[in-house]
Amino acid sequence: MADFEITFLGTGTSIGVPVIGCDCPVCQSDDPKNKRSRSSIYVRSPEQAWVVDTGPDFRMQCLRERIRHLDAVLYTHSHTDHIMGFDDLRRFTVGEDEELTIYANPQCMAQLQTAFEFAFNGQNRYPGYFKPVPVVVNGPFTLGETRLVPLPVRHGKVETNGYLFQRGGQSLLAYIPDAKELEPDTVSLIEGVDTLIIDGLRETPHPTHLSIGESVEIGQKAGVRNLYLTHFSCEVDYTVAEPALPENVRFAYDGLKISV
Amino acid sequence: MADFEITFLGTGTSIGVPVIGCDCPVCQSDDPKNKRSRSSIYVRSPEQAWVVDTGPDFRMQCLRERIRHLDAVLYTHSHTDHIMGFDDLRRFTVGEDEELTIYANPQCMAQLQTAFEFAFNGQNRYPGYFKPVPVVVNGPFTLGETRLVPLPVRHGKVETNGYLFQRGGQSLLAYIPDAKELEPDTVSLIEGVDTLIIDGLRETPHPTHLSIGESVEIGQKAGVRNLYLTHFSCEVDYTVAEPALPENVRFAYDGLKISV
Repeated sequence: MADFEITFLGTGTSIGVPVIGCDCPVCQSDDPKNKRSRSSIYVRSPEQAWVVDTGPDFRMQCLRERIRHLDAVLYTHSHTDHIMGFDDLRRFTVGEDEELTIYANPQCMAQLQTAFEFAFNGQNRYPGYFKPVPVVVNGPFTLGETRLVPLPVRHGKVETNGYLFQRGGQSLLAYIPDAKELEPDTVSLIEGVDTLIIDGLRETPHPTHLSIGESVEIGQKAGVRNLYLTHFSCEVDYTVAEPALPENVRFAYDGLKISV
Repeated sequence: MADFEITFLGTGTSIGVPVIGCDCPVCQSDDPKNKRSRSSIYVRSPEQAWVVDTGPDFRMQCLRERIRHLDAVLYTHSHTDHIMGFDDLRRFTVGEDEELTIYANPQCMAQLQTAFEFAFNGQNRYPGYFKPVPVVVNGPFTLGETRLVPLPVRHGKVETNGYLFQRGGQSLLAYIPDAKELEPDTVSLIEGVDTLIIDGLRETPHPTHLSIGESVEIGQKAGVRNLYLTHFSCEVDYTVAEPALPENVRFAYDGLKISV
């Protein structure tokens, strides 16, 4: 197999697409590529499988992609569209001795432990409760033969990471679903990465997210081979906008699978 | 119109049906009536509209039923399958001056304010953030011409309410999705109610939920005219079990609409 098999579980912004109560053409569209659950990816390496983020749509995403096993869960940040499906992870620790390691930066871990306190305190645990093993991310860590490097980015007021996936010393994939700007260290780390998956909220600038044009420029400057945009609002019509992209830039959509 | 038009938004237990990783016949079933999102109802009276509970599936439930306006949100208790869609309520307070009143018992309100602190603190509010007006439920309250009476029930260790809906002095509807036992006051309050919607997790007893037989007995003793069971696990096969029910007892399913 390839180094990584990636499935885009969700490619939408915090309120998803369609948006409740929105009459725009994209929200009314029948094209499945215009239907976007909250952003998340499922990653399989030769040794392990993990997801990055578990938003409210996590259960439906697992059912759609028939995900039955996880070795780890990574979090980018603590916004609700990235964490509120946390408790549905209980189905991955069904056995009495089964646990699942979750990786998050200090602020996100604190928020998980506040919102889902019952899962962490080890008390009054009913059979079937989720049994997380929290690991606070303060630097690189490994999952099998993959080295994961946190990529700090600016995204409103919340402490936010992307992640770089390296194997055999090579930077193969970077996933940065929520960013307005990359920290200087992050710019260096994604230099020459084979595949970059990054926030491309919409055409026009936004105070806390990268626009399509800003992300394409980041990809060009970093010399990435393949660029996938994700985390779209309903202002982005896949059918109209995707064919107009440069050759090595593609829009992701829910269910898209790529090998890296 | 009738006094109440009820739509069952979801009729599943905490992990929904299908259950992630489950190979049972119900989880593998193609019957849409065996597909259960997390329990919730949408209620329309002649004056107002509200939902009871907002689990992680709330956004998909709103899209499915084209819900575009709410006057209030009621909560039964603080378990994740009843509250984790809370932030998707932001689409119901889009206008700068729009707010939405939420009703919950003290423990549930505290948990909402802990897990979704950013929505309550009024600070650093981005346009489009959910703007809740919290009202702690300590007794009956009104929505238009409807009087809502909290129905305390026993459900594991969590403080849990059902709700009784009265109009013109008549007890028309009681909704009790999560209970193992009713408090004596609650037993009196549902006496002779027209329609009772209640937890019917499965055939066999469960430590924190009513079984189908236990709920049918409660309905018979209370002399209710129509009994709808909800909050089913994957042990309940709609196709097999529904035809065998007594005449005035029915299984609810996602999308079922009834008038009371």
